[in-house]
Amino acid sequence: MTKIPYRIYLNEKQIPDAWYSMRAAMKEKPDPMLNPATEEPVKAEDLTPVFAEKLVMQELDGETAYFDIPGGVMDLYRVYRPSPLIRAYNLEKALDTPAKIYFKFEGGNTSGSHKLNSAAAQAYYAKEQGLSGLATETGAGQWGTALAEACAYFGIPLTVYMVKASYEQKPYRKSIIESFGAKVIASPSSTTIGGRKILAENPGTTGSLGCAISEAVEKAVTTEGFRYSLGSVLNQVLLHQSVIGLEAKAAMDSIGEYPDVIIGCAGGGSNLGGIIAPYMRDKLLGRSAPRIIAVEPASCPSLTRGKYAYDFCDTGKTTPLARMYTLGSGFIPSPDHAGGLRYHGMSPILSKLYHDGFMEAVAYEQTKVFEAAVLFSKAETILPAPESSHAIRAAMDEAIKCKESGESKTILFCLSGTGYFDMKAYEAYQNRTMTDYVPSDAELNDGFEGIPALADFACA
Amino acid sequence: MTKIPYRIYLNEKQIPDAWYSMRAAMKEKPDPMLNPATEEPVKAEDLTPVFAEKLVMQELDGETAYFDIPGGVMDLYRVYRPSPLIRAYNLEKALDTPAKIYFKFEGGNTSGSHKLNSAAAQAYYAKEQGLSGLATETGAGQWGTALAEACAYFGIPLTVYMVKASYEQKPYRKSIIESFGAKVIASPSSTTIGGRKILAENPGTTGSLGCAISEAVEKAVTTEGFRYSLGSVLNQVLLHQSVIGLEAKAAMDSIGEYPDVIIGCAGGGSNLGGIIAPYMRDKLLGRSAPRIIAVEPASCPSLTRGKYAYDFCDTGKTTPLARMYTLGSGFIPSPDHAGGLRYHGMSPILSKLYHDGFMEAVAYEQTKVFEAAVLFSKAETILPAPESSHAIRAAMDEAIKCKESGESKTILFCLSGTGYFDMKAYEAYQNRTMTDYVPSDAELNDGFEGIPALADFACA
Repeated sequence: MTKIPYRIYLNEKQIPDAWYSMRAAMKEKPDPMLNPATEEPVKAEDLTPVFAEKLVMQELDGETAYFDIPGGVMDLYRVYRPSPLIRAYNLEKALDTPAKIYFKFEGGNTSGSHKLNSAAAQAYYAKEQGLSGLATETGAGQWGTALAEACAYFGIPLTVYMVKASYEQKPYRKSIIESFGAKVIASPSSTTIGGRKILAENPGTTGSLGCAISEAVEKAVTTEGFRYSLGSVLNQVLLHQSVIGLEAKAAMDSIGEYPDVIIGCAGGGSNLGGIIAPYMRDKLLGRSAPRIIAVEPASCPSLTRGKYAYDFCDTGKTTPLARMYTLGSGFIPSPDHAGGLRYHGMSPILSKLYHDGFMEAVAYEQTKVFEAAVLFSKAETILPAPESSHAIRAAMDEAIKCKESGESKTILFCLSGTGYFDMKAYEAYQNRTMTDYVPSDAELNDGFEGIPALADFACA
Repeated sequence: MTKIPYRIYLNEKQIPDAWYSMRAAMKEKPDPMLNPATEEPVKAEDLTPVFAEKLVMQELDGETAYFDIPGGVMDLYRVYRPSPLIRAYNLEKALDTPAKIYFKFEGGNTSGSHKLNSAAAQAYYAKEQGLSGLATETGAGQWGTALAEACAYFGIPLTVYMVKASYEQKPYRKSIIESFGAKVIASPSSTTIGGRKILAENPGTTGSLGCAISEAVEKAVTTEGFRYSLGSVLNQVLLHQSVIGLEAKAAMDSIGEYPDVIIGCAGGGSNLGGIIAPYMRDKLLGRSAPRIIAVEPASCPSLTRGKYAYDFCDTGKTTPLARMYTLGSGFIPSPDHAGGLRYHGMSPILSKLYHDGFMEAVAYEQTKVFEAAVLFSKAETILPAPESSHAIRAAMDEAIKCKESGESKTILFCLSGTGYFDMKAYEAYQNRTMTDYVPSDAELNDGFEGIPALADFACA
């Protein structure tokens, strides 16, 4: 038998030509987003002022399984895809495990992460519709970089509201976003009504993804020809990210492998939703039963400690309500938390799948995550993003369990990005100044304060 | 005819199993290194206190064409190689040129550059010989990162003397080197006799590659079981880097392409020597006549404005003398110069090839280089290192000439690394605070002061 190579590359023709929507195979669909004013499910006309029209269709269509990838998006995909599937032989050796560990590496583009997969689509549709610009937010900076890159490619002006904690800690993230021609504003800012309100209430705040979303949405809906763009959580984003899983499955199939366990880190759920897509299809259709594990930070544990309820997607309470696992839209994660994965909620699709038992979730403290990241980088010559390192930690722990049980399971995880802009966090880990933070139950409850919607719409 | 894909990947079995030495095909060999004490060509026993034994053999052997790549090195190569050959369709479109532009992308590993190709070999041979550690220097940080990564992989302790200008400007470079377990010391330092001497003479100096080499060599030869490791200039390094060109040629052959022009940036010459290796073989054997262009910074122009003469490889004048194009081992480039490519000399092999007319050279000011880098990053979704962007600039200019002449030439360049640790320089370019610096003839002459060896050994 031929030894499986380290890197399994598909050829260009094997880049999928359609995205796959997991919702099509779900017997019980995720609950619809609600208009907070009417408490009715949102309609296309509610969303078209916010998103490009084709994206609104993708957001609301729960029935269609495959959506053709437009030629313009394929042109950009071909510049950096297919991404490699890598057999982590060295990590296996370092762990002395009988498990077979594979990872899909999505960090091999300038933006340094999988986020470009959806950014390409969102910028393309904005161009196609003749929009004059996009506004977005970014936390750790991966999404802002990706969308700036895609907007530069398609020639779309972009304003990025960057969570102030990241803006200050990661000046080089700001630089790279600007080098692609986008405008970067620290959030909360005085440029929006929402930002001024948050600053008035909490002058010292270092911001949150929820605040930045409020500002970006406000900018988009108050600027002629602008629309809003979001890098995670939304159904459309999970749809675009399915390219990760479709490629991963094609590559795994080509070497006769099927994963027993599939792992992804989860903030809003974009890379996890991507890597699992075709395997979740199999599971939903009863054709296989792989374990699927979402990995989140202990400091922002929406799946493992949040409530499954209707909540706003932003801190300013300007968005529709989504039914999801949430820590409350008022929750702002500790500034000591190093990586991304700082969102108070979770993709409604993934929330529903978790709620219905198709998925597990686990939370890790960050020093455990960086321990895994450093070991991985030495073994596999890739410096992982802190976000992605959550998945590495879980994959390692599964592989260690295999060693104990003597089982040779096949583990697949998504390495969603690289850590080149996270050296400050790596430095803190090396210097042992990194601390772990686990919010108390009382702190978690604070996030829900002042959100009547939660009470009104809360479900069992 | 099928359209050539954006990314041409070889499979794992196509990673070369032997390195190729251009010297074997050179009718006139480069002049030998000289022992400065005896003025005699250095012998193996002069070098074995400095380098691992197998590396000394590779350094001195000018006749052997192919050297088998050891299994241990192949194991590490397979983790990140083959690297992709990429057709720069988008850059071609942006330039509206009939030229076909290909680049070999060597930045897709944690170290972010081609340097890992030689680091893997040097760390492996240190391990094989049972050495207790390595000492090296790093300028912009690519080499230090690569060797730290390779040493982590093979379990070899490493001390890195990092040019003080980089140490201060690039704290994250230091962090990543440390995260691989290496010790980093700002050079010049008080930890060596050479460093203390340089500090006494020039207390405010921000260092140079030449100073750092002196310190690393001193550390290596005065520490039991240690050896020295260098990331460029040396014959052994060009040998290891031939893997770039061998893969590039195999990929070009697979699509029926042969370059009319081959371009690489050149500081000490490692990536240029790598990408051109098999094509220079053809040229030396009279089988083809591609143009081969070395691209250097106008602020450190060893080929275009240096002398072809015997000189020390370091500032402290502790190394053997090499006959090469040099600005004088006393030359310290302006701290305003952003990228690497700061070495006063040039690979003796490349110097000889340039001297004998097998190669051209061109120098660019850095704002021109960053202009090309930003355009490239928007078109091709890769943020290039400032070093590599010298090659991009030259490739673009060749492509623009093709537009003017209507010729459809095939251009191949080496994209030796990524720019994630160079955001400060990108920021300076964007803010228009970046300046260009071209040393005067008088300043260049200063570099030669106090080097009697130069006069003694200078050749026509």
